[in-house]
Amino acid sequence: MLNRQVVLKRHPQGIPLPEDFDLVEGAIAQPTEGQMLVRNLFFSLEAAIRGWLDGKANYFEPIPLGGAIRGPSVARVVESHLAGFEAGDLIFGLHHWEDYSLSDANTVLLSKLSPEPDIPLSYYSGGLGGSGHTAYVGLHEIGKIQAGETVLISAAAGATGSMATQIAKLRGCNVVGIVGTDEKAELVTNTLGANAAVNYKTCGDLATAISQACPEGVDVYFDNVGGTTLNAALACMNTFGRVIGCGMISDYNDQDNPTPIYNMWKLVEKELTMKGFLLYTYMDKVPAASQQLHEWVRAGEITVLENITEGLPNAGWAYSEMMRGATIGKNLVAMDLRADETAPLKMH
Amino acid sequence: MLNRQVVLKRHPQGIPLPEDFDLVEGAIAQPTEGQMLVRNLFFSLEAAIRGWLDGKANYFEPIPLGGAIRGPSVARVVESHLAGFEAGDLIFGLHHWEDYSLSDANTVLLSKLSPEPDIPLSYYSGGLGGSGHTAYVGLHEIGKIQAGETVLISAAAGATGSMATQIAKLRGCNVVGIVGTDEKAELVTNTLGANAAVNYKTCGDLATAISQACPEGVDVYFDNVGGTTLNAALACMNTFGRVIGCGMISDYNDQDNPTPIYNMWKLVEKELTMKGFLLYTYMDKVPAASQQLHEWVRAGEITVLENITEGLPNAGWAYSEMMRGATIGKNLVAMDLRADETAPLKMH
Repeated sequence: MLNRQVVLKRHPQGIPLPEDFDLVEGAIAQPTEGQMLVRNLFFSLEAAIRGWLDGKANYFEPIPLGGAIRGPSVARVVESHLAGFEAGDLIFGLHHWEDYSLSDANTVLLSKLSPEPDIPLSYYSGGLGGSGHTAYVGLHEIGKIQAGETVLISAAAGATGSMATQIAKLRGCNVVGIVGTDEKAELVTNTLGANAAVNYKTCGDLATAISQACPEGVDVYFDNVGGTTLNAALACMNTFGRVIGCGMISDYNDQDNPTPIYNMWKLVEKELTMKGFLLYTYMDKVPAASQQLHEWVRAGEITVLENITEGLPNAGWAYSEMMRGATIGKNLVAMDLRADETAPLKMH
Repeated sequence: MLNRQVVLKRHPQGIPLPEDFDLVEGAIAQPTEGQMLVRNLFFSLEAAIRGWLDGKANYFEPIPLGGAIRGPSVARVVESHLAGFEAGDLIFGLHHWEDYSLSDANTVLLSKLSPEPDIPLSYYSGGLGGSGHTAYVGLHEIGKIQAGETVLISAAAGATGSMATQIAKLRGCNVVGIVGTDEKAELVTNTLGANAAVNYKTCGDLATAISQACPEGVDVYFDNVGGTTLNAALACMNTFGRVIGCGMISDYNDQDNPTPIYNMWKLVEKELTMKGFLLYTYMDKVPAASQQLHEWVRAGEITVLENITEGLPNAGWAYSEMMRGATIGKNLVAMDLRADETAPLKMH
């Protein structure tokens, strides 16, 4: 039996294309002491991966040409030589886009999952995984949201933004989402419950549109995109406002030419706090976040939006779709299990 | 007896010129209930004033053409109808560039001074006034400096920067100052005790020069200038670094064309905290700051750098000199007292 891998065929120019990736086959690795062999079930497609495709360090080592794409997955332990884990366990961790990965105590984001039988396993890659935890930790630990405040959220129909929108509403905030299509705008207001949505592609001057949608100004801006949207949001911030620096996807496709920011004076004038964060720094906050998110999902107060692509060979295509902004909610790749494999639980 | 005022003759184009100001004479105002008439003694020249000269709101109302320039001063109470103040008291507050001002309970930054006889009164406009307090509060409350950290300070030979440089050294930090002349660089290292100084005008690529001067990276950046220096500093920040947003003087002379910032991605990648502040938000921290600064000044551990221009008619010229970067330390205008007036204390 062979191990299929999606590898980097060439460095993308701008938005990644399916042809930037290649599918190769090789031997399945043998775990040694301290390691475990895991069968990947779901890959979480992350904007951050784009930063590793250019051959330059970007808080992780770059992925070399011919190297397997690095990405977080939900996986099942096949064979374990690592204390605390045994065959059959379900885990989450930063693995590679392949059938079987090696995992060990140093695997980034490694955690054992205890999926609840009434909750789809796929949620643990998104709404009840990194995306949900990022939204929750960002709003509470970084943004310090308070009921009654106005919270502006970019990429509000995306994996993290859709969760942040719902969480902020549940906390009693006024929520305005920024999106790139009218379909997403409708989703954000109708399904996710935002007070308003702004389509940045059609609204004309974005700062004016944000001001109209946020008549009392913006207290907290959850920034997933950076660039011109960050620039416009800065112009609309209230005194003592907070900017949650979660991601800057608008620049990920062309990191050598970042969008200039002109409104930094607002930092001083409005006494703003801008704070960037990466989830793995706040792992101690994840258990409480996870518990609260489970409660809300189970009570039907949060809708987890998923866009699942079936089959490892389609991972590159799915990533390209996501990075050109064509998708809604959490993007996942569900592994095409083989005939001799059985799904462990309710999958999705 | 008439009241001389320096007024705004025209909106400056770029760096203010002496001809942008005019000296006029009028009647001395009469204080009514709740007001006091004060005799200004020293004006503190502030970069922030530049933002009020363009006819646009900038956290204060703009100064209208023909209106007196607004600026903080040390003053002596001449006549008081305000509870808690009496004739002869020395005060600090945001007044106007004129001989006599009206002051009341709503005067911004209003405080009663208890100058110590061994300390020059002029210090209360600078090193032991707003500049020193801003440096102290910024480093401690916003930057949260720790001994052993590397602190980068721009405009390090300026009023606030020269105090911040010395305070950070006294707190056990490695301090690197950014300045615009070799004379200032020498002052910052030799007189103020910084570990190194970088002349941004002659160093070539600024980020490279900062990296060389800060071999362990930058933990805290005290930003007085914004613009290209902020951009370069962002590139050199360590993970969890803090940027103290104190001022952005590099853009004050041309606020319609702010310098673009390209390195905002560092906010997320390095999990930075950028926090802007205005001293008046932190007035509760000023008494402790003032006490510590007095101790250091009296012990000779802090040198207060002053550049005093004599005479109200020269205020516009002095401001122009400061805003083109030609001066060192705190810029003050000492009022030309009249023959019938006696200086209240050791002046400077």
